[in-house]
Amino acid sequence: MSAAPLAPLRLGIAGLGTVGIGVVKIVQRHADLLAARSGRPVVITAVSARDKTKNRDADLSNYAWEIDPVALATRDDVDVFIEVMGGHEGPARDATEAALKAGKDVVTANKALLAHHGQELAELAEGLGRTIRFEAAVAGGIPVIKALTEGLAGNAIRRVMGVMNGTCNYILTRMETAGLPYDTVFEEARQLGYLEADPNLDVGGIDAGHKLSILAAIAFGTKVSFDTVLLEGIGRISIDDIRRAGDMGYKIKLLGVAQMTGRGLEQRMTPCLVPEGSPLGQLQGGTNMVVIEGDSVGQIVLRGAGAGEGPTASAVMGDVMDLARGLRLPTFGQPASALADPVPAAVSAPAPYYLRLQLMDKPGALAKVATVLGEAGVSISRMRQYGHADASAPVLIVTHKTTPDAIDVAIAALPATHVVEGSPVALRIEEV
Amino acid sequence: MSAAPLAPLRLGIAGLGTVGIGVVKIVQRHADLLAARSGRPVVITAVSARDKTKNRDADLSNYAWEIDPVALATRDDVDVFIEVMGGHEGPARDATEAALKAGKDVVTANKALLAHHGQELAELAEGLGRTIRFEAAVAGGIPVIKALTEGLAGNAIRRVMGVMNGTCNYILTRMETAGLPYDTVFEEARQLGYLEADPNLDVGGIDAGHKLSILAAIAFGTKVSFDTVLLEGIGRISIDDIRRAGDMGYKIKLLGVAQMTGRGLEQRMTPCLVPEGSPLGQLQGGTNMVVIEGDSVGQIVLRGAGAGEGPTASAVMGDVMDLARGLRLPTFGQPASALADPVPAAVSAPAPYYLRLQLMDKPGALAKVATVLGEAGVSISRMRQYGHADASAPVLIVTHKTTPDAIDVAIAALPATHVVEGSPVALRIEEV
Repeated sequence: MSAAPLAPLRLGIAGLGTVGIGVVKIVQRHADLLAARSGRPVVITAVSARDKTKNRDADLSNYAWEIDPVALATRDDVDVFIEVMGGHEGPARDATEAALKAGKDVVTANKALLAHHGQELAELAEGLGRTIRFEAAVAGGIPVIKALTEGLAGNAIRRVMGVMNGTCNYILTRMETAGLPYDTVFEEARQLGYLEADPNLDVGGIDAGHKLSILAAIAFGTKVSFDTVLLEGIGRISIDDIRRAGDMGYKIKLLGVAQMTGRGLEQRMTPCLVPEGSPLGQLQGGTNMVVIEGDSVGQIVLRGAGAGEGPTASAVMGDVMDLARGLRLPTFGQPASALADPVPAAVSAPAPYYLRLQLMDKPGALAKVATVLGEAGVSISRMRQYGHADASAPVLIVTHKTTPDAIDVAIAALPATHVVEGSPVALRIEEV
Repeated sequence: MSAAPLAPLRLGIAGLGTVGIGVVKIVQRHADLLAARSGRPVVITAVSARDKTKNRDADLSNYAWEIDPVALATRDDVDVFIEVMGGHEGPARDATEAALKAGKDVVTANKALLAHHGQELAELAEGLGRTIRFEAAVAGGIPVIKALTEGLAGNAIRRVMGVMNGTCNYILTRMETAGLPYDTVFEEARQLGYLEADPNLDVGGIDAGHKLSILAAIAFGTKVSFDTVLLEGIGRISIDDIRRAGDMGYKIKLLGVAQMTGRGLEQRMTPCLVPEGSPLGQLQGGTNMVVIEGDSVGQIVLRGAGAGEGPTASAVMGDVMDLARGLRLPTFGQPASALADPVPAAVSAPAPYYLRLQLMDKPGALAKVATVLGEAGVSISRMRQYGHADASAPVLIVTHKTTPDAIDVAIAALPATHVVEGSPVALRIEEV
């Protein structure tokens, strides 16, 4: 807003994969737009990647090249270090720390780094008067970090929820629409390049759990606590469950929920059922959705692409533009030194549950199951028994709202009835 | 982030209706939270409203009271002037200008003021080095101004769309669910206090058009141009159309669309059909939704409460917190002096259309209609003719994608067939 033109903001980009190249393209394509909006030129001065000879989808000839990201991070001609390498140890962490110590601000897309080392990095940055921004680390192109940290800063946040791993959502959607089993679709996803090198990061819920732990820190003013996220992946979801849940009007999603309760901070990333007509139920493929509930604003729902070159680079550039415009905030919205140590709490809020069990064809079998459920305090809302040619038949039960403890008690008591084959499946139903 | 505590940010609130009282409540309830998040106390020093004796739902005894909002706006103990009076002339405008001239930043919820005088006010503010923030002016609690101006600042925006008048959406939803005619529901809405003193602001699309024109200015870097928004209210929507559209799988919404085309800036706020299963189609009652499409991010969808004490006050406080944290941006995201004069363009993009016409029971009647449509270049995708006891019957047509011009030509040519009773209804179908 000042009349005197400001100096250019000089970016150094470490990592020239999909996201890094996406950032290069935006800076090149929109030089005028970025300058008009931020009041100063936004330029790339240097980049870093291991393999300089690799053919990349952008002209990098005008930028200095560093093999070592730490060298890039400490260059005099870099104001903002953009870390889009990934990995929560090694070069990403080293270079991020080096950048902060060299007086640079940092923009990162690295959820693992923040989930594991967010507190130390935030303390380091704030002690040095530097800023770390990480919009791209959570839910791709959706500006959810900004909405939560800034737009809703007048709210006590009650709950944050989200479907934030596009690969899991792709797998679950594809299993349903193509009628294929988990293993087949998992292999498809691998061949399509949708899976991380360690697929458990995706299908084990770890990547989405990283994101949830970051949102929780901002929402509740607590230190990032990834280790206390209850994690359960999608590996045990069968095509049967997807079909049966569909019969009852639900979709299965890998859903994250973080809320501060009277007993402490509850964080879970687990497969849940959601009503098929709900916003979460309608999410297809790689689209992400985050739901934020605040005491004044009520419920805000944000939807958009959770990954990909354009959306992720858009998020990185949102952060870059904030820095170009002079916005400086503590990493998690309030000073890292003031963040509380969260007290982890088990899931306690009652919810309806979906139960699938294989009932033997014996007289009084269903009555025995109903009795066990009733004794555990679990009451049945809806039930469906399927026809069968074998000695057992699938039975689906949707319960009334009940506590996780009661469900656990009921599940544990079922084998002693001797009328249930195998392990029953219990999935929480979230009616968002 | 600095170690030395900053001085309190002192608010003066002009207007103690729903929104003003909502802001008071947040500041009182969340003093600690606001201070932790912004690094400084956020306090109210003075308030203003015409009637000091009115019973209000908050304790105002600690605040200085000004009858005259201009006096409030120029008080030495006010840093931020919060304008939540409404009206685009008179006290709201005078006090806003006075506040800027007195060196205050301004937070306003006043969409009419910005739609009519946004450019002058922005130039005034930026000339004086002051900031105007207005998250609450568009889509209530949804942080859409922030998302568009900041989070998506790396994108060339292609299109912005939204359902942004909760009263219209309430009326349309209620007509459908209760099967009541427009006039009855309009009267209900009036008695419920949902309508502005001048109801045409709501049902005529003016309020929503104000909001769209503000979004368009930010999205496309153009001066606010409310006068060139194509406005059409919901007054001509009949319960018949709602039902018939439903039969064809659509809902009717008052939908705003702004996009920059090769011919210029297209802005319209008109009743449209949207697929019933789409996010827009599922919006119920007072909920708002804004869809933003950017060249990198793709499509982002934001949903939340569009009005009410809590959501609107949440948006005001988001702006206040930005100011407390030192964020300063030009009003519309780039300097007002650099905003282009938009060239208004008529709607030109092809879309499917919904046509409802009353066909006389004459031999060859349908063929005549089909011929007229065909000659205008309008081709039929789906058609439904209803049974009838009278001399005419309703016919519904969903066309393939066609231009607005072709639809206009076809509609104009229909009377000459002498087989169509009354005026056909044509509504655009937006497949968002």
